[in-house]
Amino acid sequence: MRLTLTLAACLLAANVAHASEPTTIPDRALRTAAELREKALADTLAYALVEELTTTIGPRLAGSDNDLKAREWMLAKFRELGFDKVWSEPVTFPKWVRRSEHASIVEPSQQALVISALGHSVATPAGGLRAPVVAFESLDALSAADPDAVSGRIVYIGPRMQVSREGRSYGISSSIRSRGPSIAAQKGAAAFLLRSAGTSQARQAHTGVTRFAEGVTPIPAAALSNPDADQIERLLKRGAAVIVRLDIDVGFEGEYTGANVIGEISGRNSDEHFLTGGHLDSWDPGTGAIDDATGIGITTAAAHLIGQLPDKPARSIRVVAFANEEAGLYGGKAYAERHRDAIGQAILGSESDLGTGRIYKATATVKPEARGAIARIAEALAPLGISYDADAPGAGGSDLSAVHAVGMAGLSLHQDATTYFDLHHSASDTLDKVEIDALRQNVAAYAVAIYLTIEAEGDFGSAPGAFAPSAGQSR
Amino acid sequence: MRLTLTLAACLLAANVAHASEPTTIPDRALRTAAELREKALADTLAYALVEELTTTIGPRLAGSDNDLKAREWMLAKFRELGFDKVWSEPVTFPKWVRRSEHASIVEPSQQALVISALGHSVATPAGGLRAPVVAFESLDALSAADPDAVSGRIVYIGPRMQVSREGRSYGISSSIRSRGPSIAAQKGAAAFLLRSAGTSQARQAHTGVTRFAEGVTPIPAAALSNPDADQIERLLKRGAAVIVRLDIDVGFEGEYTGANVIGEISGRNSDEHFLTGGHLDSWDPGTGAIDDATGIGITTAAAHLIGQLPDKPARSIRVVAFANEEAGLYGGKAYAERHRDAIGQAILGSESDLGTGRIYKATATVKPEARGAIARIAEALAPLGISYDADAPGAGGSDLSAVHAVGMAGLSLHQDATTYFDLHHSASDTLDKVEIDALRQNVAAYAVAIYLTIEAEGDFGSAPGAFAPSAGQSR
Repeated sequence: MRLTLTLAACLLAANVAHASEPTTIPDRALRTAAELREKALADTLAYALVEELTTTIGPRLAGSDNDLKAREWMLAKFRELGFDKVWSEPVTFPKWVRRSEHASIVEPSQQALVISALGHSVATPAGGLRAPVVAFESLDALSAADPDAVSGRIVYIGPRMQVSREGRSYGISSSIRSRGPSIAAQKGAAAFLLRSAGTSQARQAHTGVTRFAEGVTPIPAAALSNPDADQIERLLKRGAAVIVRLDIDVGFEGEYTGANVIGEISGRNSDEHFLTGGHLDSWDPGTGAIDDATGIGITTAAAHLIGQLPDKPARSIRVVAFANEEAGLYGGKAYAERHRDAIGQAILGSESDLGTGRIYKATATVKPEARGAIARIAEALAPLGISYDADAPGAGGSDLSAVHAVGMAGLSLHQDATTYFDLHHSASDTLDKVEIDALRQNVAAYAVAIYLTIEAEGDFGSAPGAFAPSAGQSR
Repeated sequence: MRLTLTLAACLLAANVAHASEPTTIPDRALRTAAELREKALADTLAYALVEELTTTIGPRLAGSDNDLKAREWMLAKFRELGFDKVWSEPVTFPKWVRRSEHASIVEPSQQALVISALGHSVATPAGGLRAPVVAFESLDALSAADPDAVSGRIVYIGPRMQVSREGRSYGISSSIRSRGPSIAAQKGAAAFLLRSAGTSQARQAHTGVTRFAEGVTPIPAAALSNPDADQIERLLKRGAAVIVRLDIDVGFEGEYTGANVIGEISGRNSDEHFLTGGHLDSWDPGTGAIDDATGIGITTAAAHLIGQLPDKPARSIRVVAFANEEAGLYGGKAYAERHRDAIGQAILGSESDLGTGRIYKATATVKPEARGAIARIAEALAPLGISYDADAPGAGGSDLSAVHAVGMAGLSLHQDATTYFDLHHSASDTLDKVEIDALRQNVAAYAVAIYLTIEAEGDFGSAPGAFAPSAGQSR
């Protein structure tokens, strides 16, 4: 008994190594991680969580009744799974609602359009609006346009998202979604439509949030499905005047206070922790299975698996189910604000928010002395088909971008995005799209990375202001 | 000159061979057919027609403004393409309209459902209806159910359509769609929902017509997308009471008189003809690209190609753009009724109505003495990857089923249905789904089959009452 205690004390002492000494991963931790990896590849918990959350509650638009139900479910689930500490932290944001949305081409012929109003869009006037469509190829082309060519019209911007493992062109499409409506509004446009930031030819629109600049009077803004965007482009190419009718009833309903829901597996040093999780909210057209019930399922299952080990881990694991990621990273920002002074305790962070795409690459932003430890973690991930890019940064994920910005070291486990944007923010984001084997590979990667990090001797550089802010991207 | 005329006269005389002599295909016709086949494989007309019809007009629900626009377009197009005779024949049917449709699960949590009201459904009461869902595995199970278990509830039937080249399980699913609502209504159900007769996991419902038996008070009936059907089944499996709200505004608006639009390439014997075509109407959620603008495009392009030959063909080709196939084969039935006495002039018929699936098999229902001619036609189709099943019947297609029933010999060119039911009757039936190379293979097959038939020496057995009725299937 005494021998064990002494050993534990030595190990704890080792954790407080001098900052300039390299951080290391103990061999015994690597052996346990290999066992965790194999167990995780047969995991059933992550899928069960995703199934229950998306089936019994379904869509979880921030501020909706289902947002509250999801938080209650998450609190109960952490407790049921034996997490040592379970709590929530309030997050306040503007509540936005979607009541109804209809669109059609009315000239040259009557054709219904499939749209999805963008988050933070405003409604059309009562009775809807009718206006001709004017198309632009890019944000730059719109920015350069004469207001006379835009005023009173429905602005359309049409670049098509390309498929790639890295989801590269999402940046372009999401930037049109974020910034386009505000630029169009400044030039007097009646409304704004974009080709969805999505890669499927199914007739479904992909929503997402937009932002109007200070002082700009917002206009209605919506995404068109790819086939609807194609149709408008073909009609315009034929030289026809294309008149579109929009009837969109959406808008703000005051402020709402939701919460980040947090479950902790406590380690021997319960203050220091690995920070992980996903976001509990989702867009409303689908049931938010891949965005981001899977993130909740993967990280909760990984933490739970480590919690089932016979020995308490060296440090804690904190799983955060973030509030309202979709409409502006409110949960992540609130978390960063609340914990900024103690950010050094979050020794490393990694969030899961790209569905069930297999993880193919690890990158990290840590202090130089911890690069060797990250390399050892990467070696333990290699059997899962995960490579390591030592030269690329890793901020840890969308919600964690704000936390990274206040000083948390970040680990990014990059998922294959090849099919993700077929579904993302659309009605087709449902449970049937979850691939169980890929989900298990994710659980295994998180279990390995989290366990090796919390057992490391030395830290990863987290400290207030330690890392330069990097741009967070809402996914 | 005289020699040529004499030769033509001899060929015409040969066409009137005695009924008991075998029908034959002249060698020179086979040579020309081979040339047509190669030309058709570079065809651009079929796609251009599909593009123009689905872009400038779009959805073509029978009885809608777009129905009229499509008929005007078709008449103009036949004339523009130089068809020798162009006319239309009135077709009257009940006009059914879709105004709006909304559905959601309200218990155990609020979740929007993606539905499509079935053609000939009635509306929900003003303000919608709310009722618990009761599920059945099959029509037989529903038929056997105690009315007490059904009364006041929303009946759900859930068999899933399986993917196959032959589209085999569409029969089961379309039978649930056609007959289920009537059976449920007889037992006092409040409404009827079925899992869509569709094979995609995209969040889209597949509509289609239903029929209420004489004396039954109709109830609202709609199809659920596959993911929505999955969700309801999972909730029921969990033992939850599933309460659904339906707000469907659809219904009949009197009678409407549309038309079959007909274009003829005239042969030397202009009365006898090959009867081909597709249906001009479509369901309203999509733009009816694969159902059935492609049928119109394929058969018009094939006929036009033959019309461009230096010599007039021996017999005519009649391309019919049928009215209102979708809600009950109204165009086909009207055509059969109008032409029943002269049906012997329609020497063989084959309609195209399965999108751009490649043709993989030919079958025919003809008189025994014409089987050898069909086998020679099949040989000319073989280079297109088309096999011949001499033992299976061939009624010629859905609209032609009624025409076949009054005595027209039929040729069926079976298309690969592997992906067809991903799109069929859904919002995703749009131009981008048309595969140009497969479309060309279809044009080539129709050009070859039509040309060899109209050049045949002898007939195929068409005569009033010549063939026993075979069940037509609306697709």
